[in-house]
Amino acid sequence: MTSPNENHFTSDVFAVETMNVPGGAETILRGGRHLFPLLPRAFAGVQQIGVLGWGPQGRAQARNLRDSLAGSGIRVVVGLRPGSASAADARAHGFTEENGTLGDWLTVAAESDLVLLLIADAALAAHHEKIFGALRPGATIGLSHGFLLGHLTTTGGDFSAGHGVIAVCPKGMGDSVRRLYEQGAHINGAGINSSFAVHADPDGNAVDRALAWSVALGSPWTFRTTLRGEYLSDIVGERAILLGAVHGLVESLFQRWRLAGDGPERAYERAPENITGPIAATISRSGLAAVREQLDPAGRDTFDRAYSAVYGPARDLVAEIYDEVADGTELRSVILAERRLSGRPMANIGGSPMWAAGAAVRARRAERKLPVDPFTAGAFVASMMAQIDEFASRDHPWSEIVNESVIEAVDSLLPYMHARDVAYMVDNCSRTARLGARRWGPRFQAAYEQIAFPAAEGPADPGLIASFTEHPVHTALAAAARLRPSVDISLA
Amino acid sequence: MTSPNENHFTSDVFAVETMNVPGGAETILRGGRHLFPLLPRAFAGVQQIGVLGWGPQGRAQARNLRDSLAGSGIRVVVGLRPGSASAADARAHGFTEENGTLGDWLTVAAESDLVLLLIADAALAAHHEKIFGALRPGATIGLSHGFLLGHLTTTGGDFSAGHGVIAVCPKGMGDSVRRLYEQGAHINGAGINSSFAVHADPDGNAVDRALAWSVALGSPWTFRTTLRGEYLSDIVGERAILLGAVHGLVESLFQRWRLAGDGPERAYERAPENITGPIAATISRSGLAAVREQLDPAGRDTFDRAYSAVYGPARDLVAEIYDEVADGTELRSVILAERRLSGRPMANIGGSPMWAAGAAVRARRAERKLPVDPFTAGAFVASMMAQIDEFASRDHPWSEIVNESVIEAVDSLLPYMHARDVAYMVDNCSRTARLGARRWGPRFQAAYEQIAFPAAEGPADPGLIASFTEHPVHTALAAAARLRPSVDISLA
Repeated sequence: MTSPNENHFTSDVFAVETMNVPGGAETILRGGRHLFPLLPRAFAGVQQIGVLGWGPQGRAQARNLRDSLAGSGIRVVVGLRPGSASAADARAHGFTEENGTLGDWLTVAAESDLVLLLIADAALAAHHEKIFGALRPGATIGLSHGFLLGHLTTTGGDFSAGHGVIAVCPKGMGDSVRRLYEQGAHINGAGINSSFAVHADPDGNAVDRALAWSVALGSPWTFRTTLRGEYLSDIVGERAILLGAVHGLVESLFQRWRLAGDGPERAYERAPENITGPIAATISRSGLAAVREQLDPAGRDTFDRAYSAVYGPARDLVAEIYDEVADGTELRSVILAERRLSGRPMANIGGSPMWAAGAAVRARRAERKLPVDPFTAGAFVASMMAQIDEFASRDHPWSEIVNESVIEAVDSLLPYMHARDVAYMVDNCSRTARLGARRWGPRFQAAYEQIAFPAAEGPADPGLIASFTEHPVHTALAAAARLRPSVDISLA
Repeated sequence: MTSPNENHFTSDVFAVETMNVPGGAETILRGGRHLFPLLPRAFAGVQQIGVLGWGPQGRAQARNLRDSLAGSGIRVVVGLRPGSASAADARAHGFTEENGTLGDWLTVAAESDLVLLLIADAALAAHHEKIFGALRPGATIGLSHGFLLGHLTTTGGDFSAGHGVIAVCPKGMGDSVRRLYEQGAHINGAGINSSFAVHADPDGNAVDRALAWSVALGSPWTFRTTLRGEYLSDIVGERAILLGAVHGLVESLFQRWRLAGDGPERAYERAPENITGPIAATISRSGLAAVREQLDPAGRDTFDRAYSAVYGPARDLVAEIYDEVADGTELRSVILAERRLSGRPMANIGGSPMWAAGAAVRARRAERKLPVDPFTAGAFVASMMAQIDEFASRDHPWSEIVNESVIEAVDSLLPYMHARDVAYMVDNCSRTARLGARRWGPRFQAAYEQIAFPAAEGPADPGLIASFTEHPVHTALAAAARLRPSVDISLA
């Protein structure tokens, strides 16, 4: 994916650090509010940042940037399409026509020095040429994920020549990017980690500009990747452990516990509730190995059998997803789906019997502390390890691997699913993610039910368990944990 | 798909007929052993037919062609790759080096006037150029499905210029092609229907050559399509109602009946056993409408609710599959999978709990006649109708629609699944079909469980039911039934 040098960088403004990771070291920048005074220097040449779009990322990033740059003289202006339904909410958050911080998207694009393209993927695919055409000479294009690169590669297009192209990609949902930034007012460094990438750098300022953007978002820890690496890990991750695999796993586990005799609420507690609750909290607090270590011997045996049976089928699927995303097949299918579904709604998946039990389970959370279910834990952790190993085999940097496979899950998505539910999350995330989760979630479900769970009746594979307990990811996660303060990840 | 004229043809040798279908008429050729004396004239210029490959189709077609052409002077010779594991079985069936009817595949290709490429898809993809290079001038290339066209389109290749390219595509498994041909010795016209296509016709003999091939295979009824139309309907059909949808449906129904309190054997009887047994038999004997008509009023209400809830989600999925096959995305994913899986086996899906109940259910078949389960029937028939309507909306000829959506299912694949089981069939069919069924079966399962079955708690949609009961497919199926003798479809 990236050559070792591509994970390294230097800065004229910020003091970078070196993080030891399995097999070497990566350069990172630790963030925090004490760095905000450096932002004007790092943003040299930028008088206005245009934020196009008011979806979850646009909404969070525009607010964080405005707060971080208060008093700096750098303006943050939101640009929306004519008649956008989001204008009222933007105004309610202080971005108004009257104070000059809300305008037409093409006008804002034309007047800004850094233009963040935070509109929906389908809009990006349809309108990027129009936006590129509106840019002033020397303006920098900013992205928060690699989708546009994938789209351009699939359709034979390219970025606009002569403009800088940088990406800062928060490893969490927009809601988390704002919520943890606000916590940062009291706990310096609280926030969502980000990767950054420099895709085109005509004036040589791209690295500092990207780092400034990331620091201003409140990223506790910023690491370097490539736009292609970000695209692959992002699109694969949401189809696998971040969304698709979780959905497939909870559907199959719920059926398993129901057929074993549990009532709906008990089965719900042992399936989605267990993953979004105690398992996610344990990993967030103490790492992946701790999930297994805190079980009693009988629990460990169950964990080990589930882990051994699930790892192989899950790894096969992550490899399949990776191949299809890298080949362009996956994005081609998203484009076909958008065309087919234009004009009629996508069916929701929240109607399955499992979700009916969710409200009752959430209502009695205060009553007792739910223990980790060892089978569910083994199956979930094996699925997570499958993605980690697949990403490592494709040479992603470890910062990207742990953020895209573990930290984003346990500190952003799973807490959100815990507050709502998994199906709600799938039905309400970005269309690219939603289409991908609907495409691959059922594949995981079938693999768990038809291949893995029957195999879990047999004994554990000691070799697989040893490679889990001795895995270098535990070191990488511990190093990552030292880079940021521990925060309360729960959602009201 | 096809312009109306592309479904018509004339022959200098055979007396063709016109079949009335919804919205018009199609030309067809009714087969039978009484036509065998015409074969030498229709095969004018062909002294030797080379059959490359000894898979299910090669094995059946080589034997049928040899039997039908006995005494005609036209030789049927089997060509196999050096060291082929199939050579022993070919010899056991009388194709031997000694009598000159078994040889090296490239030698056989070079010495034959009509070369049937019945090797596996992956081998076809890898070796078609080598085979094309071996052909003598004027030799005709014969195919039995459109895979190679799809592969050439996806990879930018083409057929070898100057050679005729024809296809005769039996609408059933190789085993059925042989088994029903043998029944034809007693019931004239028993056999598996075939489509034919003329893709290149440099000498003007392609139509009669294709018709002769089809008649010699024992096809009771031959209709015309294009190679592209055959490719699309074949690849989509096996991913939908022929294989993928059936697998997804029986998994979801089994879980449904288990959760409703049925034991494993009872649930098995209401899911796979019901579809492969009484439902398939009713459709084969009396058509699609009969499945609903023979239910009592309460049964019809259940059928109607299941039908109404399933039709929409199933149609969405068939449309999605069709888009991906037409776009080339689906075949691209098969190529990626073949590359990824080279050197390690594909996991079997036969391990899910459902299949453990199959043996006991099959053992007690003699005891009682299993009634049609109305819910299972409504869900299955709705899935079949979804494919029929999607194919009709894409302008496939009606002969192709009813063969690829109904007749191939109830007269070939479902009886085979009834004798073995559905998972066995998926695990043992062609790799292109197997990869497709594994890719789409889980999508159907999830759509049934998460979208359709919850909706079936509500009332039926009278409009959907009316469009089913008045659907033109019933006329087309009745016309099709008159074209061939009724045969016993059961397998020992």
